[in-house]
Order: sequence, then structure tokens, then C-alpha cells
Amino acid sequence: MDKLALLKRYFDKDGYVKLSKVEIVEVSKEKAVVSASISKEHLNGNGAVQGGMLYTVADFAFAVLSNYLHPMTVTQNGHISYLKAAFTDTITATAVEKARVGRNTVCEVTVCNADGEIVCMCSFNGFVKDVSWEEFAQHI
Amino acid sequence: MDKLALLKRYFDKDGYVKLSKVEIVEVSKEKAVVSASISKEHLNGNGAVQGGMLYTVADFAFAVLSNYLHPMTVTQNGHISYLKAAFTDTITATAVEKARVGRNTVCEVTVCNADGEIVCMCSFNGFVKDVSWEEFAQHI
Amino acid sequence: MDKLALLKRYFDKDGYVKLSKVEIVEVSKEKAVVSASISKEHLNGNGAVQGGMLYTVADFAFAVLSNYLHPMTVTQNGHISYLKAAFTDTITATAVEKARVGRNTVCEVTVCNADGEIVCMCSFNGFVKDVSWEEFAQHI
Amino acid sequence: MDKLALLKRYFDKDGYVKLSKVEIVEVSKEKAVVSASISKEHLNGNGAVQGGMLYTVADFAFAVLSNYLHPMTVTQNGHISYLKAAFTDTITATAVEKARVGRNTVCEVTVCNADGEIVCMCSFNGFVKDVSWEEFAQHI
Repeated sequence: MDKLALLKRYFDKDGYVKLSKVEIVEVSKEKAVVSASISKEHLNGNGAVQGGMLYTVADFAFAVLSNYLHPMTVTQNGHISYLKAAFTDTITATAVEKARVGRNTVCEVTVCNADGEIVCMCSFNGFVKDVSWEEFAQHI
Repeated sequence: MDKLALLKRYFDKDGYVKLSKVEIVEVSKEKAVVSASISKEHLNGNGAVQGGMLYTVADFAFAVLSNYLHPMTVTQNGHISYLKAAFTDTITATAVEKARVGRNTVCEVTVCNADGEIVCMCSFNGFVKDVSWEEFAQHI
Repeated sequence: MDKLALLKRYFDKDGYVKLSKVEIVEVSKEKAVVSASISKEHLNGNGAVQGGMLYTVADFAFAVLSNYLHPMTVTQNGHISYLKAAFTDTITATAVEKARVGRNTVCEVTVCNADGEIVCMCSFNGFVKDVSWEEFAQHI
Repeated sequence: MDKLALLKRYFDKDGYVKLSKVEIVEVSKEKAVVSASISKEHLNGNGAVQGGMLYTVADFAFAVLSNYLHPMTVTQNGHISYLKAAFTDTITATAVEKARVGRNTVCEVTVCNADGEIVCMCSFNGFVKDVSWEEFAQHI
């Protein structure tokens, strides 16, 4: 079964990811990377990428990684620290799993501007429903 | 000076709030309320309001309140707990300030579905730049 | 059954609360209040109440309230914002429940110095095991 | 100047770290490791290491690393996820810096039991005062 193709079909149904124009760059056991080309609709009144957009990109990186590692993971908590205003034409978020214990997963997500500078650090907790890829495929 | 009119002009320049169709309902010293009518573009693959959208609505409630109370507040940290899937046609977020100490503000934001049930609880920290309304007006 | 007496017996077995000398002041459906008289062993190198101590007092307020409201609640996440250095001879923490949805509870805890000024704002998430008071009593 | 010796002298004045019996194991640019031998005074009523103690150990790992990397860093926010009850005779916390931007530092802290299993994942934000080691030494 082509897991990445399944995941892409699953997330194709995500209206807000589509509205926000975030795309999957890569996903493996080690990490998920997603990114967005920034246009005016992503900016706040000061011309920097808006805080909700930055969170949405980070959350999507977490969703891609955790659903790839353990099909059907739902977010329980998200925490984001804003470190630097993002005046940039691309935002990239990279998710890495830091712990998987029982039905819990904790991932760290780093959000960078086009120069690779960190603009946000995030951590997410997810609850793992632990369905098989076959079951997961039926949801899509 | 009509502070609410100023704030509305300020946030009119926020492209992502506009893209996400979130609107200010009310703002006073006690609280800020914002809401969004939910359509397909706000939903995840399971038909519930997407996590990034819920955060964006919450973050906007915080931004409206904190900039109303102390012009020019920037978000430093956001924390969101997802408590219930939001199958609803309206999302409302209410921000209340819990502490203001020096240049820091901490607000709690409650996100509800159309039945008034809590779907997320959030807390935000902001750094207060403490500019006057006159200076703030010049930014807009 | 005297719930408060049961709770006190339960927390009497908590070695770290005892070591840290935190005590229950009051507990009701509305809130739990705990406090500690500060002595040298609670201070950091700068003479302020140490960050771990402040968290421990806050966490205890949460534990008292959540176990009073729903016997056997375990902490899943704790978040603390330090707003002001605490040079004081008493620390008081007050926990209030903000949401109870399914098996999740979210409480806000305010930590104050002897003058009633806020030094930390915290939020805690707990998982509610939902045992009866009879079962709970058997654990003690 | 022997930075580690200075740091140890600085933290020797921390009453709560001493009360909690947490010790520095190692510190370098890459990480700080601290640990505590667990005895009855660290346990909750269920015989597991108490939540405030776990946080205190994690916070100390952060304090050691951040003050080593940038003398005089104060904690702004701490976030802890409890993943597994810690029935163990040793607790070890390892702090790693994930981002340093302007006067902000974000560190991740992993807390493990004696078997090296993760029991908590934490993230801390600190404000860097950026004093020289000479100035720092005068504080001690």
C-alpha cells in the first residue's frame, strides 16, 4: 500500500489546509516537512505572516507525521512560541516525533522562513487511535 | 477617539483573518468575542472544524482584546487544548484577560460551537509594547 | 462521606507535597485554594521563590480541585507562565475548572504572593478516571 | 574561568534544588543532564514520582543549560506532558536548546526513568539577560 498516496488523499479533503495553501514536501519515519508559498492573504496588518497561519502550517506538519507513523492520530494539545516576525515568501515546518508512549505521541515542530531561520518552535500532543492502514484507507 | 473603529481598521488589513472569515462581535474591557460562520473550507477530512482554524479564531479573540486593552500587543505563546470535535455551523471565541504584569499579558480564550459547548480552551501570552492610541492610529 | 477528609488523607500520603510544605486551605465546587509558608528551602539563588516550587504549589491546587470534583484525575499537561519574581513569605494558588468535556478537565490556576499579586498563571489538563468515592476511599 | 564550577556555586544557593536533591550530572554546549535519586519524599500517594518533582527536575536541567549557554536566563514559560507513571529509583532530565533568537531561548527537556524510558516531555522558554561571565560571577 502506498502510504504517502493515501495520506495525500486523506489531506486533500482538508478544506482549511487547501484554503491556506499548505503542501506536503516529504514524509518519512524521521520527519514530515510541509510548506506554503506566502501571499498577501497570509499576512497580518504589519506585513508579516499571521500567527494563525504559522500555527496552521505547524499543525499540518504534525498531522502528516503522526498519521504517517500511527494512522489516525488526533491532536490533543498544541503549543507555539513565536520567536521572530516572519517577513518571507515561504514558510516551512518540520515535525519530528520525540516520544511515543502508549497511545500518546509528542512531536516537536520547527517553523522556518525562506532563509532557514527559526520563526516558531512548537510542540504537539496527539492521541493515537491505532487503526490499521486498511481501516484508515476506508475512511478516505 | 473611537477605539473599536480603529481596531476594526487595523484588523481589516489582516489577510488571514479575512481569508478565514472571522469577525469581531464585541469588545470591551471585560472581554472580546469573535466568530466565524463555518463552511466547507474550514473543515478537516472528517467534517469537523479544522484545528488550525480553531486556533486562528482563538488567536484573533486574543489579538482583539489585548490590542484593545493595550495598543500593540504581540503574541509570544499560544496554547490550545482540543476537547471535542466541532461539528457546527458557527465557532465563537471569547477572550478574557487573566493577568497583566509589567509588559506581559495572559489571556484565556474559550472556543465554543453553535450550542455554546466548549470545544477548545486556550491561553495566550503577549508582550505589551504600550504605545498610545495616537501612535497606534498612525500604524493603520 | 466526608470528601474533604478523604482527600486530606489521600494527599497526606504525598511525600513531595509534605516535603514542600504545601497545605490545603479550602476546596469547594467553585475552587481549591492551597498555600505554603515560604522559608529558605523554597528559594532560588536570587532569594525569590524557586520556579519548581511555584509549579508544585500550582499543580497541587489543580490536583485537589480535580480529585474533589472527579475522584481520580491524573495530570496530562501542565503549563506555567512566570510573570513576576516572588519575594514573599507566603504563596497561594487557586484552581478553578474551566471546562469538563468527556474524560477531560481543564483548570486554570492563579499563583499569588502575600500581597495578592499574581506571580504565575497556569493551566492544567487532566484525564478523569471517574471512579466512585467508595472506590477512591479504598485506594487510601 | 571555570564555568561549570561557577554554575555549581550559583545553583548551590538554590534551596529547592537542594531540598529536592537534584544534582548536575554534566553540562556542555550540546546538553545539560541532571538527576535525582528517588526516595519516599519524592513520591505521590500512588508510589510514583510526584508531578511537581518531575517538573522541578526538568526545570533544573533547563536552568543549568540556559545559564551555561547564556549567563542569566530567566524562565518565562514551562510546559510539561506526563506520558507514563514513574515507578523508578532515579530520574534523569536532559535539556537541549532548540532555538535561540534575539533574547529568547527555547529548550526541550526529556525526563527518563532508570530504564531510560521517557516519562515526560517538556519545553521551556527563557529570557536571556546576556550578562558576561564576569558579571555573573559577581552575583554568586
